[in-house]
Amino acid sequence: MKITVIGAGVIGVSWTALFLAHGHDVTVFDIDPDAPKRAQAGLEQIQPTLLGLGLNTEDLASRLRFTSDLAEAVANADVVQENGPERRQIKRQLWADVERHVKPTALLLSSSSGTTATEQAKHMQDAGRMLIGHPFNPPHLIPLVEVVPGERTDPEAVEDAMNFYRSLGKTPIQLRKEIPGFVANRLQAAVFKESVALVRAGVVTVPELDEIVVQSIGLRWAITGPFESFHVGGGPTGFRGYLRQFAKGIQLLWLHSATRPVVLTQRLQQSLLDQIDASFGSRPIHDLETHRDRRQVALIAARAADTSNDQ
Amino acid sequence: MKITVIGAGVIGVSWTALFLAHGHDVTVFDIDPDAPKRAQAGLEQIQPTLLGLGLNTEDLASRLRFTSDLAEAVANADVVQENGPERRQIKRQLWADVERHVKPTALLLSSSSGTTATEQAKHMQDAGRMLIGHPFNPPHLIPLVEVVPGERTDPEAVEDAMNFYRSLGKTPIQLRKEIPGFVANRLQAAVFKESVALVRAGVVTVPELDEIVVQSIGLRWAITGPFESFHVGGGPTGFRGYLRQFAKGIQLLWLHSATRPVVLTQRLQQSLLDQIDASFGSRPIHDLETHRDRRQVALIAARAADTSNDQ
Repeated sequence: MKITVIGAGVIGVSWTALFLAHGHDVTVFDIDPDAPKRAQAGLEQIQPTLLGLGLNTEDLASRLRFTSDLAEAVANADVVQENGPERRQIKRQLWADVERHVKPTALLLSSSSGTTATEQAKHMQDAGRMLIGHPFNPPHLIPLVEVVPGERTDPEAVEDAMNFYRSLGKTPIQLRKEIPGFVANRLQAAVFKESVALVRAGVVTVPELDEIVVQSIGLRWAITGPFESFHVGGGPTGFRGYLRQFAKGIQLLWLHSATRPVVLTQRLQQSLLDQIDASFGSRPIHDLETHRDRRQVALIAARAADTSNDQ
Repeated sequence: MKITVIGAGVIGVSWTALFLAHGHDVTVFDIDPDAPKRAQAGLEQIQPTLLGLGLNTEDLASRLRFTSDLAEAVANADVVQENGPERRQIKRQLWADVERHVKPTALLLSSSSGTTATEQAKHMQDAGRMLIGHPFNPPHLIPLVEVVPGERTDPEAVEDAMNFYRSLGKTPIQLRKEIPGFVANRLQAAVFKESVALVRAGVVTVPELDEIVVQSIGLRWAITGPFESFHVGGGPTGFRGYLRQFAKGIQLLWLHSATRPVVLTQRLQQSLLDQIDASFGSRPIHDLETHRDRRQVALIAARAADTSNDQ
């Protein structure tokens, strides 16, 4: 398959690595003259992780090319995966330009986490094949892709996108409505808000908050999601028993948190940054990244080894 | 060590199993005549998980006894771990009763998730050895214990509690202030609120929401917590770069969510229950529990195998 990746930032390079490792031909479009060099460095860093996932990493470069000419980049594409700047006007113009040069059968996917397909496709004549395929960072490693059609997206294009991502070993989930931030980032934002509030209140430090998550809800939610966790933890009557016992307490926590709005002032941001600098932030990002990915691969493998009783 | 477990519910039985598997003598206090039978059944169910964690499961019953006499239950205890009903008046009375019969050197720990040590110890003469040791369900499996001293707790008792939990292979984290719900449950409540809001709005179903979490943030947070995840995902400048790129968007998501209060009405609860019944809720809780614990053990083992570069 011929895939065009628009934008050679962190997300674009990660997609590129995954597409190549699955045997596809990849054209990367970016107007930055340094993009090829940056992408090559990124691919090298990702290579051990691809190996860890059991993917092919031989000869990837022979199927990879770069261009700063959009028309040429998309002319033969079967799939376009867009990773441009998170600005609505830029995306609208980009898709209008892509539409003039791409085959009508091409699948047009945006990695955007902030702009819906309906908003992005505004200046397109035919938006039937354009939709969101929002990955979770890094896309070559974290299984989820949120697939979100716009108002004008054809149902067939949605199916094609689901199948495309499945063929890459991803877990695509189709959302039923467009909503700002989609689902995973909204949940993440909810935890981040409470985390910042707790650090601001001096209940825990930044590294303590992280350790609490890693040693409790993170470990739990890598296996069962919030609803199933409560259901299984609710005793013999499951979620019914859980609600009977805890609904009132949860409602009180919600009210309590709502009385403390969190605003990311410069001062609050600086205080978080200071705590990060004094803890894990003192290590090179590259080391943290390598360490994270190696452990993540081990976890994914352990999870995959026990699917005998999966739903 | 002689440990007294107060209350033979799910949490009490789980603690009992862990204490026994670490070689301690355990006395379980419960006024329910069925408690011994229920506890035995619980211990049998937990046994494979203890084995999976590499713990001793031989001859546990020989070091276990039951009583419905509180004075007798606590008379020789080195540690008391309380798991009674989540009601303030009951806990206050209980600790006042315990104090009359326990050795002054005993460590008095409450599993409570909802009532602070300061509130619980109100009727005690000497509250110096009383504090919160709040586990995450199930305590024999999930590493976190939130250790939260009350206003009258001695610093030495806090250290003793931290060392006690460490000796059991747990990860105790001491909170710096008493706050309703402590930390992990507040974060969990924040995610649950947004989850319910998204299901209510028809963006996803209950099982879709769970799958999204398991395939993205759950997997991520089993390795790195929210702050480190954003730091490592923020590019070369880490959390600074992350804030620069996303602080405004996150602030907007927080505002957007704040405009939609969530109330767990009977109708909303029923709609969640219907979706659960139609998906994972159709399987026996016992099966879900066994499956969850087996996979959880595998994940804990995979994580432990790669600590070479840990902080």
